[in-house]
Amino acid sequence: MAHNVADLPSGPLDFYRKKASFNWKDMLFFLEGEDIVAFKQHVLKTLEDDPLFARQPGEDVPIEKMRAMTFLRVKQLFRYDFLTRDEVMSNPWKTVILSDCLGMYDWAMSAKYFLNKGMFGATIANTGSARHSKYVADVEDMTTFGCFALTELSHGSNTRAMRTTATYDPKTQEFVINSPDFEAAKFWVGNLGKTATHAMVFAQLYTPDQACHGLHSFIVPVRDPKTLLALPGVLVGDMGKKLGQNGLDNGFALFHNVRVPRENLLNKTGDVAPDGRYLTPFKDPNKRFGESLGALSGGRISITRMALVNLKLALIVAIRFSATRRQFGPKDMEEIPVLEYQLQQWRLIPYLAAAYALEHFSKSIFMNFVEFQLGQMMRDKSGRQSCSSVSTPAVDTDTWPVMNRLGDLRNDNDPNCTYEGDNNVLLQQTSNYLLSWLHAKHRDGVRIESPLHTVDFLEDSLHILGGKFTARTMEQCMDSAVPLAAYKWLVCFLLEESRRKLEEQRASGKDDFEARNSSQVYYCRSLAIAYIEHNCLQRFHDLTTDQDTPAGLRPVLSKLCALYGLWSLSSHTATLYQGGYLSGKKPTELVQMAILTLCSQLKEDAVSLVDVFAPSDFILNSPIGNTDGQLYKNLWATVMQGNQVLERPSWWKEFISDKPVVGSLRPKL
Amino acid sequence: MAHNVADLPSGPLDFYRKKASFNWKDMLFFLEGEDIVAFKQHVLKTLEDDPLFARQPGEDVPIEKMRAMTFLRVKQLFRYDFLTRDEVMSNPWKTVILSDCLGMYDWAMSAKYFLNKGMFGATIANTGSARHSKYVADVEDMTTFGCFALTELSHGSNTRAMRTTATYDPKTQEFVINSPDFEAAKFWVGNLGKTATHAMVFAQLYTPDQACHGLHSFIVPVRDPKTLLALPGVLVGDMGKKLGQNGLDNGFALFHNVRVPRENLLNKTGDVAPDGRYLTPFKDPNKRFGESLGALSGGRISITRMALVNLKLALIVAIRFSATRRQFGPKDMEEIPVLEYQLQQWRLIPYLAAAYALEHFSKSIFMNFVEFQLGQMMRDKSGRQSCSSVSTPAVDTDTWPVMNRLGDLRNDNDPNCTYEGDNNVLLQQTSNYLLSWLHAKHRDGVRIESPLHTVDFLEDSLHILGGKFTARTMEQCMDSAVPLAAYKWLVCFLLEESRRKLEEQRASGKDDFEARNSSQVYYCRSLAIAYIEHNCLQRFHDLTTDQDTPAGLRPVLSKLCALYGLWSLSSHTATLYQGGYLSGKKPTELVQMAILTLCSQLKEDAVSLVDVFAPSDFILNSPIGNTDGQLYKNLWATVMQGNQVLERPSWWKEFISDKPVVGSLRPKL
Repeated sequence: MAHNVADLPSGPLDFYRKKASFNWKDMLFFLEGEDIVAFKQHVLKTLEDDPLFARQPGEDVPIEKMRAMTFLRVKQLFRYDFLTRDEVMSNPWKTVILSDCLGMYDWAMSAKYFLNKGMFGATIANTGSARHSKYVADVEDMTTFGCFALTELSHGSNTRAMRTTATYDPKTQEFVINSPDFEAAKFWVGNLGKTATHAMVFAQLYTPDQACHGLHSFIVPVRDPKTLLALPGVLVGDMGKKLGQNGLDNGFALFHNVRVPRENLLNKTGDVAPDGRYLTPFKDPNKRFGESLGALSGGRISITRMALVNLKLALIVAIRFSATRRQFGPKDMEEIPVLEYQLQQWRLIPYLAAAYALEHFSKSIFMNFVEFQLGQMMRDKSGRQSCSSVSTPAVDTDTWPVMNRLGDLRNDNDPNCTYEGDNNVLLQQTSNYLLSWLHAKHRDGVRIESPLHTVDFLEDSLHILGGKFTARTMEQCMDSAVPLAAYKWLVCFLLEESRRKLEEQRASGKDDFEARNSSQVYYCRSLAIAYIEHNCLQRFHDLTTDQDTPAGLRPVLSKLCALYGLWSLSSHTATLYQGGYLSGKKPTELVQMAILTLCSQLKEDAVSLVDVFAPSDFILNSPIGNTDGQLYKNLWATVMQGNQVLERPSWWKEFISDKPVVGSLRPKL
Repeated sequence: MAHNVADLPSGPLDFYRKKASFNWKDMLFFLEGEDIVAFKQHVLKTLEDDPLFARQPGEDVPIEKMRAMTFLRVKQLFRYDFLTRDEVMSNPWKTVILSDCLGMYDWAMSAKYFLNKGMFGATIANTGSARHSKYVADVEDMTTFGCFALTELSHGSNTRAMRTTATYDPKTQEFVINSPDFEAAKFWVGNLGKTATHAMVFAQLYTPDQACHGLHSFIVPVRDPKTLLALPGVLVGDMGKKLGQNGLDNGFALFHNVRVPRENLLNKTGDVAPDGRYLTPFKDPNKRFGESLGALSGGRISITRMALVNLKLALIVAIRFSATRRQFGPKDMEEIPVLEYQLQQWRLIPYLAAAYALEHFSKSIFMNFVEFQLGQMMRDKSGRQSCSSVSTPAVDTDTWPVMNRLGDLRNDNDPNCTYEGDNNVLLQQTSNYLLSWLHAKHRDGVRIESPLHTVDFLEDSLHILGGKFTARTMEQCMDSAVPLAAYKWLVCFLLEESRRKLEEQRASGKDDFEARNSSQVYYCRSLAIAYIEHNCLQRFHDLTTDQDTPAGLRPVLSKLCALYGLWSLSSHTATLYQGGYLSGKKPTELVQMAILTLCSQLKEDAVSLVDVFAPSDFILNSPIGNTDGQLYKNLWATVMQGNQVLERPSWWKEFISDKPVVGSLRPKL
């Protein structure tokens, strides 16, 4: 196939590129499609060609300048307008790809852009009504700049416990927004530090009858759009330096009885009449609450994706480095690339397999999510909520342990593990979902069948639990069907064990909160992780066995899939032995040999596998990970291009004069 | 006991402090001793009282200023002269404590100080001779400033492969130091970036007969001590911004035939006569090489210690935060500290146990090391080398997964995982050491008995391998003897498996390099890890059962020891099943229940356990980890004290004017 993508420069990486078992361009177009490849290239090339986006690796940029640069770049993104609303509607996946592209360049810039347009603008459009359209329009052309103010200093995960209040005053038909004390200050809010003119503030709504109707959101102006000065009654400021993403201004706000018009309440799930009566289409306040935080579901898929993009970037750098860095060798003075070492393969290549598995997983989950959003299955709330809570922790955990831009990637990736609640809180939602199916089956004889069919196999639980590991050779283990079968057993086993544990806890007199709390480690948490990994493996397995997957790509994809499955499964080996699925020495040996053999086979494909998802060197911004593989030349050049590299320090006279008298400040005894 | 240590301020942490099962001051004095506690307090208080060491959390300091501040602080350390040579001789442990203290304040400052005085000054004293005493004296009073230049751009772990040359010229009685190309530039060298006037350069020594005598070290002046300008022939510069430790100037140097006097060769292990003859007391070049890099052994113990100090700092912040941060609870609006959650206990408290285990491990290993250095057992090289290679990876791995200063800690800790070679290279040295004992026993019938007796139990291997897990109740598992016995079995099993694997590889025709390379994952690497963990557990177990350990402290220490043992062991559960040490469902359940029960019991002691090793708030420098537990007040105060927190950004006009025309830069189709 002739594809409209440039060839890669010749150099030290040719050694591996020539060994690849597949054509990297074929893989790229199979996974992404012509349209997406072209869109991605357009976005990335546009940034590369615009001097406003130029930067230097290793540059020491003060925060104020980082913020200014990020703002100017975001402003330029409005001019480029990479995706119109129509384009998004015709292919919603492009929003994800745009976020990937902007994030590969700089997550802080991407966040600044999408927090304003998405978390603020789109959430107003989705949770408000016609009376809020002006706010949406003002966001579109940067007349205003928005932020999403949910978390408070003393509350993050526990959204219900937010303490900001919005009390309705029928006399003036206004809401009075108030922070009871500094612990209830809105905190950590992106864009609020320096830029936002408006905040979507979540507050407890009180009507004149003193009734609290729970958390609602309000559009609250915080800065004058003509001066960027804080408005009266709003103490708004910047949280200062963070570990990563310093181009984004995270901030805080304290509200001292700030008045906003009644209409500023986003009223899709609940409204207040001019006279102060509370009106809602929801009978059940829990359902209303769930619906009003629906905006976070889409967010979770983006978080998954951010973590995955970071994993890919880290792999590009680590694998290209390992393919060109030589150290030691069979004979003195003849050194081999570190990628040839078993240990290095085992440390990197399973993550490469995971990146491919998760790419397919996040894309297929997104497509399912879009279908839901289109309303086809709007009634099954549980299915939808599970699918977004489910994907976040899988990717975050996998992103972690991979190793020039690696430090920044890690620092920038950190929030992905805690955004919208600690991962473990989300895992708990997943296990609760599975347990509720089991409960429904036992109590009401319901058939286990979810809209995405991800839980249907639990219906066969009894039969699955009777199974054993049956592979007898390493070759048999190299088929992803082997770990897949083991995962089905594992999920059934952990589900049953979790149920038993929970019942045991309840029987000992613990209340529900305490019983669940004491069943997380080794039970519910492991269940949730196994379930997500099973789901991810199942989807990847289906792709590799699909007849529409090109024959030239199927062998390498099948290896990646088997490796992902076996390697993920190996963190559960103890449980497999414990429950009797495995026994004796042999199975572990076979699985371990299969993992090492797959790593060793895939090492030949590893460079091409990262070429598939690698952006240009400009975007990657890591001299040791450049496409040309000229590790040392690029690193040396980067160091030499630094600022004042060869100059003596500005403080040189401090060395020359005023020499210390040793011990002069030592206390005399 | 009345100890001369201040009481802790009252506040939200009292809740846990009052529940503690032991007196934290008793623990402090038992572990450290009066003398060390007083020394530590003196050093930390001195820094706190000197305005030169003042700083602000979250401050955005440019690199040039960070470097200047670090230099000025190091200069001040000369004036304080916290440890004289005599004091070090009478209690060498104080050097470690001084490094701990300076590092708790700032690792970059600590590194800058010790790289000059230790890695440069002390190494000259140890590997040179009388003719080098002037260089040692010049370092002592900061007339000069030194650095240790071993690694090159293209070589790190493989020290033998360094390519810098030192060719002796008998005509002028000089060595000509030369870098063949930029890939052989000395690289990553701390202090070389901006400060060093002299470098200890490792280079291949060539005599006039063209013979290469391998790596030797030379004192090479690089900058004029009167101007800090580079000397002719030396291209020396700064590597620029790093992920962490930016107060330290890491640099590079390229030498263009730079001439140094013959006497600048550090000649303890090899010398060149004026006429060019090479002279060495070592017959075996490998032994000479090992001896000349001996300086790194002490370094490895310091690295272990740095990682441990970082683990402790991270635990102080994480545990105090978890004890004061409340989120969710059994009933609505009544929230509990996150430390009450099983999952949070399980994520933190095993690391607390590991910190106590590793504290004792690193101290007792240091004491053994000092004994060796004193020459009592100088003949057993293997024992000594093993003891330092052994400790690094154990601590680095344990430091990793723990979570306001946490980001910096992680970034500053990163090099501890790669200094002096990738951890896995060091692990390979450890497994080689164990395998060599087995080999000696099989071939020569040698009795397995090392000077530190850490391998002696392998002599009983056959008997140990016949053992099984015998605990029948959770209570029985809560004794550290249970994991200790399991570890002995595990080490014997993995040693035997590794030997078998290696023989299998050799039998299949692989050479030694390839056979070892293919036996690392699941075999030799796991063996090394298990062996180190066993050693650490054994030492801690001995401490907790020692009659000299105060009765009031033994219960909590025993719990920590059991938890450390069970938790470390649990990463090997699959192997225990695989080899038949465990079977059935019960043992894992018992061990898991024991771990969770110990975590739950120790959570009451957790705050006091971190109080034992916590420095003052000034040194800790993390508002969420302050002694008073006023989490939100301290965080709020810190944010409000930041620079230009409430001011509008300097770039505010960019928001007001020149509004973007949406899509104006979009390509017209």
